[in-house]
Amino acid sequence: MNIKRLVKKEVSRLRAYNAKEIPCRIKLDANESPYDFRPALTVAKDISTNRYPDPDAAKLKRLLAGHLGVKEENILQGNGSDELIYYLIATFGGPVLYPVPTFSMYGIIARALGERTVEVPLDAEFDLDADKTLQAIRKEKPKLIFLSSPNNPTGNCFSSGKILKIVEKAAGIVVVDEAYQPFSSEKGFLPLLKDCNNLVIMRTLSKIGLAALRVGFMVAGAEIVAEVNKVRLPFNVNSLSQSIAVAALKDKKRLRNAVKTIMSERDRLFEGMQKIEGVRPFPSEANFILFAVKSPDKVYGALLQKGILVRNINDAVRGCLRVTVGTPEENSAFLKTLAGIIRNAR
Amino acid sequence: MNIKRLVKKEVSRLRAYNAKEIPCRIKLDANESPYDFRPALTVAKDISTNRYPDPDAAKLKRLLAGHLGVKEENILQGNGSDELIYYLIATFGGPVLYPVPTFSMYGIIARALGERTVEVPLDAEFDLDADKTLQAIRKEKPKLIFLSSPNNPTGNCFSSGKILKIVEKAAGIVVVDEAYQPFSSEKGFLPLLKDCNNLVIMRTLSKIGLAALRVGFMVAGAEIVAEVNKVRLPFNVNSLSQSIAVAALKDKKRLRNAVKTIMSERDRLFEGMQKIEGVRPFPSEANFILFAVKSPDKVYGALLQKGILVRNINDAVRGCLRVTVGTPEENSAFLKTLAGIIRNAR
Repeated sequence: MNIKRLVKKEVSRLRAYNAKEIPCRIKLDANESPYDFRPALTVAKDISTNRYPDPDAAKLKRLLAGHLGVKEENILQGNGSDELIYYLIATFGGPVLYPVPTFSMYGIIARALGERTVEVPLDAEFDLDADKTLQAIRKEKPKLIFLSSPNNPTGNCFSSGKILKIVEKAAGIVVVDEAYQPFSSEKGFLPLLKDCNNLVIMRTLSKIGLAALRVGFMVAGAEIVAEVNKVRLPFNVNSLSQSIAVAALKDKKRLRNAVKTIMSERDRLFEGMQKIEGVRPFPSEANFILFAVKSPDKVYGALLQKGILVRNINDAVRGCLRVTVGTPEENSAFLKTLAGIIRNAR
Repeated sequence: MNIKRLVKKEVSRLRAYNAKEIPCRIKLDANESPYDFRPALTVAKDISTNRYPDPDAAKLKRLLAGHLGVKEENILQGNGSDELIYYLIATFGGPVLYPVPTFSMYGIIARALGERTVEVPLDAEFDLDADKTLQAIRKEKPKLIFLSSPNNPTGNCFSSGKILKIVEKAAGIVVVDEAYQPFSSEKGFLPLLKDCNNLVIMRTLSKIGLAALRVGFMVAGAEIVAEVNKVRLPFNVNSLSQSIAVAALKDKKRLRNAVKTIMSERDRLFEGMQKIEGVRPFPSEANFILFAVKSPDKVYGALLQKGILVRNINDAVRGCLRVTVGTPEENSAFLKTLAGIIRNAR
């Protein structure tokens, strides 16, 4: 049987997402936190491996609801926020609009589900182009709009005035993906949920030290949560991740200290990069920094040769690499190595 | 904004899957193993919670490939086999054909993804109705056919001759869901993979003591695996589940002993139920037994009142309940309580 011909056209055209692991000494490519939550792992020993997980993730949702000041009916848990993007698109369909460059999964998942995508370029300051976006909204009537703020890979928050305007004028749901919000000086869009019933906020535990668990969640009006819940697999968040997430989130001090250190290290990293002639870092509200160099492919390779892995995003943002904030030692090693590479290239 | 009107029609019509936990003393409702893998949990302490999981689940796939005698390129990992059903339907689309009664998720997920379903009733012996199925294949040309064998909730294996005929005549992919195969006296369809390139086998760790982890996998030709992999979320199986699954699967003796005990307890349970006048158990190749009683709703309620939770499937198979094989003590308690309830009802 000809398998290729059986596959849906939209899927057949796709290429598998390449997330291959590249060996390195200092891993600064994936926007992971350099700080783990080992103590929380002790709860794992009490799991009944033979029993299905709580399909409602009740304890986790109760804790999150308390932290965020919302009700449990406003929260939906995901196997990472990736899965919630899948579910949102399965629920509302397309077209799916998002600015570019941004987190690649919005487009990848929309295409996997056979939905049309509408991409609107950011302006020269990496902010939303409000005019073009509103124009695209009028013309394409997207069912879903994804706005990552702070945006990956650019690192900035979009102007909240522009986001608000888009929420107001949208013909469908607007998802503000706040994966990097904990590292931002802005307070995010949660307070607006009660006034905007087409607004969805996405958060994740992946950037604050728990990427191994795959726990993301969305916060929205109860009506949206109930609809998206219909397409959710009942046991999507496993027992270990539920329990460990609860234990880790209760350790507020560890959480807060890690985020504080990452933010101050980000600022030190930014200043250090500014001092290297030929390196232009962009201001960041996230746990990574986008930076421009003259020969990004070469600099990427030279860093890797020294054991330092960053993300090469020359294809998405011309001339740029992205470095995740690591431990103070890792950041110092990165700064020193980068300076050396640039100096030698002259 | 009117949220309900924004939702895709197919999703709007759905009801959320109800997997509420019902308090009980003896839990025999969910086809879980009564035996856990606590020792394997010790590997959890070595997980770096802050790092993303291996997107390829390389160690787990290597181990599974070795056990099954296939190549790693023939295996795709899922967050439970539920997720693989999602991915298969996203990849190949509908119509989706399956016999009824069977595992409810085939229909639920097909509808969530907006695909049409074709349901073909089983015959009086709960076997496939080959004529009606082949007729439906000719008429509806399903892109996907799901055959759970051993079948849930009936417990029997379908005739392998009929399955083969369907694989041969299908216009699309035939998925044989072997979730319960470890408890069966038949050897399953893995040996046929090399001759049938439209065949997919699904397996899971959920029934053999690891339901908490959410690890399922499919085995198929490399071409099918590569296509379905395109719609897979890169980090769908979390780090803890990968590591604990590997540790548990290496403990072959514990695995084998648990399955052996469950099989012999199933046979004892069957004989015990046969001896209760007014109870008609159906032969099972799985880790549960379907049984008919005169007033299933009443018997279900009376068992629960005594702290024993079984599954009421009176809506799917008229007059029937389903009991999962528990520990010897649990099974004895179930037999004694059931006999008492039936006796009192006279």
